[in-house]
Amino acid sequence: MTKIHVHGGDIYRNPGILDFSANCNPYGMPKGVKEAVIQALDQAECYPDVKCDALRRALAKEEEVAEEKIICGNGAADLIFGLVLARKPKKALLLAPTFAEYEQALNSVGCKIVYVPLSEEKGFVPQENFIEAITEDIDMIFFCNPNNPTGILADRSYMERILQRCKNFNTFFVLDECFIDFIENPKDYTMKAYLETYSNFFLLKAFTKKYAMAGIRLGYGFCSDSNTLENMQAVMQPWNVSVLAQEAGVAALKEKEYVKETLDKIRIEKEWLLGKLKKMELFCYPSKANYIFFKGPLHLKEKCLEQGIAIRDCSNYPNLEEGFYRIAVRRREENQRLTEVLEYILSGKRGNRQWQRQL
Amino acid sequence: MTKIHVHGGDIYRNPGILDFSANCNPYGMPKGVKEAVIQALDQAECYPDVKCDALRRALAKEEEVAEEKIICGNGAADLIFGLVLARKPKKALLLAPTFAEYEQALNSVGCKIVYVPLSEEKGFVPQENFIEAITEDIDMIFFCNPNNPTGILADRSYMERILQRCKNFNTFFVLDECFIDFIENPKDYTMKAYLETYSNFFLLKAFTKKYAMAGIRLGYGFCSDSNTLENMQAVMQPWNVSVLAQEAGVAALKEKEYVKETLDKIRIEKEWLLGKLKKMELFCYPSKANYIFFKGPLHLKEKCLEQGIAIRDCSNYPNLEEGFYRIAVRRREENQRLTEVLEYILSGKRGNRQWQRQL
Repeated sequence: MTKIHVHGGDIYRNPGILDFSANCNPYGMPKGVKEAVIQALDQAECYPDVKCDALRRALAKEEEVAEEKIICGNGAADLIFGLVLARKPKKALLLAPTFAEYEQALNSVGCKIVYVPLSEEKGFVPQENFIEAITEDIDMIFFCNPNNPTGILADRSYMERILQRCKNFNTFFVLDECFIDFIENPKDYTMKAYLETYSNFFLLKAFTKKYAMAGIRLGYGFCSDSNTLENMQAVMQPWNVSVLAQEAGVAALKEKEYVKETLDKIRIEKEWLLGKLKKMELFCYPSKANYIFFKGPLHLKEKCLEQGIAIRDCSNYPNLEEGFYRIAVRRREENQRLTEVLEYILSGKRGNRQWQRQL
Repeated sequence: MTKIHVHGGDIYRNPGILDFSANCNPYGMPKGVKEAVIQALDQAECYPDVKCDALRRALAKEEEVAEEKIICGNGAADLIFGLVLARKPKKALLLAPTFAEYEQALNSVGCKIVYVPLSEEKGFVPQENFIEAITEDIDMIFFCNPNNPTGILADRSYMERILQRCKNFNTFFVLDECFIDFIENPKDYTMKAYLETYSNFFLLKAFTKKYAMAGIRLGYGFCSDSNTLENMQAVMQPWNVSVLAQEAGVAALKEKEYVKETLDKIRIEKEWLLGKLKKMELFCYPSKANYIFFKGPLHLKEKCLEQGIAIRDCSNYPNLEEGFYRIAVRRREENQRLTEVLEYILSGKRGNRQWQRQL
C-alpha cells in the first residue's frame, strides 16, 4: 500500500550522533517550558482538556487570532492528517519538493495528487505555473512558506494570488507557516490577516521548531470556517493533545526573550555557515528559514555519518535527484564541527566537481 | 456532519470537582513514571522515536508478545482511529452500549454501523445474537472486554466463538482489553494467546487507566498481521507518541509492586462501594472492572454536580435511556464522600422509586 515515511532526525538508530537533519531551535527548550511540564505532572493523571481552552486563550493573545478560530494538535502533523480526513479531498496539488507529510496524509484518504515541480534552474522558487495549476477540479492545495526543504520564501503578492485563485475555484488552501517565525520580518509575510476574509483557508503552525519541543508534540492551526474545525474534531480523537503539551505550550508563549535572543543567534549562525559552505563551493539556495538547502557531491550523507554527523539527504523528495541536502543551523561549536567534517570530506573530492551547480 | 464526542472527566469546565466520571487508577501516577518524564525532558527537544523501539521492547517482555506485533499510539483512541483509517471498513458491528470512540472512528471513514443492543433484562450480558450478527458483509467488529460502561466480562469460550466466526467470514476483530488488568484473573480472560493463530485480530490496551497516565497519552495494540500494522503506520503521523510518553511507558512497566498493591486496593474499595450502593437500593450490575454501572433516579448527575461530584451520566450511549450511570472506584475517603452525597440526594427521593429496576 502506501510507502512509509522517511524523515531526518533518526537519532535512535544513530546514538550519539550530532544531528543536523532535524530543524529545531539548537538552543534547546526554554527552562520555563521544562518547569511547566514538571508542574503539570499531577494534572497528567487526568485526561487532557479536550478543548485546549487555556492554550487556545494564550495562543489567541500571542497570535492575535480569535480563540474560536484556533485548533490544537499532537504536533502540526496531527492536524495535517485530521484536516485531510475531515475534508476527504479527491484531488490535491502539491509543490515538488515540499514537506512529505502532506502527501502521506493525502494518500491516507486515497486522494489523487498533482505535483507541480519546482525547477532547479529557477532556484526552486514557485512560479506562476503553480497558481495556474489550481483549477476547479483541485479540492485542496498545500503550500509551505518558507518551503521545506528549500527554505525559499514566497512573497505576499504571490500568496494573495493563490488565495484569490483558490477562492475562485472553491479550492481549500492549507498554508504551512511552521517556519515563518524564523524569517526576519514574519509580519510582512504571514497570511494570518487573510483568515477573516477567506474561509476556505487553513493556516498551520507549531511549537516544535521555535521552542525545541519536537518530543512534546504540539501544533496548532487557524481557520475561520467553523464547519471545518468541527469536522476535524469529529474525525480526530478528543484527547489528542496531552496535558503536558498543553501546559508546555502555555509556558512557551511567555518566553519572548528566549525567542528573540535565540532566533537572532540562529540568523547570525546561518550567515556564518553559509559563508563557510560557499567557500567550499557548495551551492546554497537562499533559505529564509533556520536550515540551509544545498547541492553537493553524492553520498555526502553517508560520509558525514561516518564522521558522527547526520545531515538530511533530500533525494527521496519528489522531483529531487541525488546530491541535494538540507542541514539545520545549530550552535557555533556544532556548526564548526560540521564545516570541519565537510572540508575533510570535500578535500578528498577535489578532482570531482561534477556535483557543482551548472549555471 | 458527525456529532462531537461527549465523555466523562470534564474537570476543566468544573474546577475543583471530585471526579468519579473518568476511570483512572485513583492512587495516582507512580513516582517512577513522574521521574522518568522529568529525566526525559532534555530528550524531548528532539523528535520522538518513530518506531518506539525501547517501549516496544519493554512491552514485549511484560506482555509476552513479540515486539514486531506491537504498535504504540497517542492513547488507545489514536490506534482506534488509525486502525479504522488503515482498513476503511464499509460495514461494522458494535455492541450498544459500548465505548463511544469506536463509533466516532467508524464515522470518520463513512462506515455503516450495525448495533446489537445489549438487553437490560439480560443484565447487559452479550448474547448469541451478537455472534450471529457477524456475517460476511461485516468488515469489522469492536468488542470491549470487560465492556465499558457496563463492566460486564465475557468468558473465553464466548470470545473464541467470536474469533472463529470472524475468521469464517473474514471479518476484522478489534478486541479492547483496556480494562482487563483490573479483573482478578486477567490471564484466564485475555485473548493474547490467540494472536498467533488469528491474523484478522487486533488487541488494544493502554497505560491510561492502570497507571493513571491519561494526560500523558499512551496506548498500544497487538496484531500478528504485519500488513495491518504497516498500513496503520502509513495513515498515521510518524511522531504520534511523544518522547515523554515513550519514556513514561518504559518506566511504568517496572512498577509491578504499585500495580499489585493499587489494583488490590481498588477491588476492596469496589466491594465496599457496591455494599453501600446496594444498601441504597441502587441496582448495580456485576462489573469486573474498576468502575460500577448502576441504575438510579433521573437527574442524579446534576444533583451530584451540585454537591461537587462528577459521575458519568450514560444516557447518551446508544441503547441506554436516562437513569443509567457509571462511577469510578476511587480511594476510601472519596468513596465515602460519594456515598454520603448519594444518601443525601436519595433521602429526598424516598417517595419515588420508579427508577428501581423492574425484576
